[in-house]
Amino acid sequence: MVKKEKYFASILVIGDEVLSGRTLDTNSNHIAKKIEDLGISVNEIRVIPDNKGKIINNINTLRKKNDYLFTTGGIGPTHDDITAESVAEAFNVKLEENLDAYNILKNFYKEIGSEFNDTRKRMARIPYGATLIENPISAAPGFKIENVFVFAGIPKVMQSMLENSIKFLNKGKISATITIKVDAVEGQIADVLGKISIENKDVKIGSYPYFNSEIDFGVNVVMKSINKSNLNIVAEKFKKYLSKESLNYK
Amino acid sequence: MVKKEKYFASILVIGDEVLSGRTLDTNSNHIAKKIEDLGISVNEIRVIPDNKGKIINNINTLRKKNDYLFTTGGIGPTHDDITAESVAEAFNVKLEENLDAYNILKNFYKEIGSEFNDTRKRMARIPYGATLIENPISAAPGFKIENVFVFAGIPKVMQSMLENSIKFLNKGKISATITIKVDAVEGQIADVLGKISIENKDVKIGSYPYFNSEIDFGVNVVMKSINKSNLNIVAEKFKKYLSKESLNYK
Repeated sequence: MVKKEKYFASILVIGDEVLSGRTLDTNSNHIAKKIEDLGISVNEIRVIPDNKGKIINNINTLRKKNDYLFTTGGIGPTHDDITAESVAEAFNVKLEENLDAYNILKNFYKEIGSEFNDTRKRMARIPYGATLIENPISAAPGFKIENVFVFAGIPKVMQSMLENSIKFLNKGKISATITIKVDAVEGQIADVLGKISIENKDVKIGSYPYFNSEIDFGVNVVMKSINKSNLNIVAEKFKKYLSKESLNYK
Repeated sequence: MVKKEKYFASILVIGDEVLSGRTLDTNSNHIAKKIEDLGISVNEIRVIPDNKGKIINNINTLRKKNDYLFTTGGIGPTHDDITAESVAEAFNVKLEENLDAYNILKNFYKEIGSEFNDTRKRMARIPYGATLIENPISAAPGFKIENVFVFAGIPKVMQSMLENSIKFLNKGKISATITIKVDAVEGQIADVLGKISIENKDVKIGSYPYFNSEIDFGVNVVMKSINKSNLNIVAEKFKKYLSKESLNYK
């Protein structure tokens, strides 16, 4: 991969339990934050069901559009864990018993005094050509194949797999961020933000209102840029405007 | 729309702040849970940036594949709020100042003693032919156009818009659900679950391991079906197996 200024990734969350609302997905948020700090921006997140055809289509769509694709969910031992076989099919390679994965699992179950049964052996099946990603929590490894990283769905396990994947990732230029919390509603600052935004194309400005109660509301204005000096100038300009309008901020 | 047994929806979360990890999206989870109870299943969730071309493409892709599409985010007054104009473009209709929306906003700002300035008037721009969705929290309405529901991104506001949209939705048959919490790891129950799953195609079985600590882990087995009597039979069969294997459950 040629070294670039900025890298892009998508996240594919695989799991009926997220679509039904049973589980609140926090994995994509965790991945987004972590890789943002490495100069890799997430440009799309998709949540899809445990359905082979849909997994294959989405993997092939998203891996081709991005530098990286991270998937979560569906690599356990049960009948609804079909991510590994779907990834193999997406890459048109065999799903095979991986000797390293087999030995990791065999040792783990020996250590905890539990049977290494056929069901558990399923978790040693890895697409041909993939690189294992260690999982110190529950042993069963994730894997990476080309630019696709396949992680478990359990947050703790997923997080450790992500940590163990950072060494494989190219790092981009990191944006600096300034957040200004304004005691106002958006209607009071929208004009000036629009104007600053047009005048400073290299600073991305987001406006995020919050409303906790009748007396606790406001707007978080988030300014981002890889051009740090201009970011500071723009932030100061906005603060000066707020002071002039007698709007509190911090 | 012809009355059906089951309805399907997608959710489109619009917002850079979710992709950067700054904001944890809880809106899609809230919508999924609420409409699941109405017999409407979510089959896909996508999170995309505040980018007009991407919003238009995703709206047109998802609205055609589904009975309903819900969008969240991007309908406020600031420069990065481009959902309404993108929806209008997706449907190839004009974005126009909606008289009802205008009056709602005018009265609201009069009541709170705040100026109804040009920026705030932007929130009265609604795609031609859309039906307004009331927002008692902050006045600015959401809207529905054909099968697309356009909601705000602030959770409280979004939730009230969803409540006010339920009257527009067809209701499907509701699945019954039985959740069995098993003190085991998946490897101990995967075989029996796979077998039961194959034998009972009308019962959808999900296996969701959790791992909070070395001593607090297990599997939530979730069984779902619109055939309630068979669901009960299957659940009892599984519990009998657990007892036979001396596995605790509740």
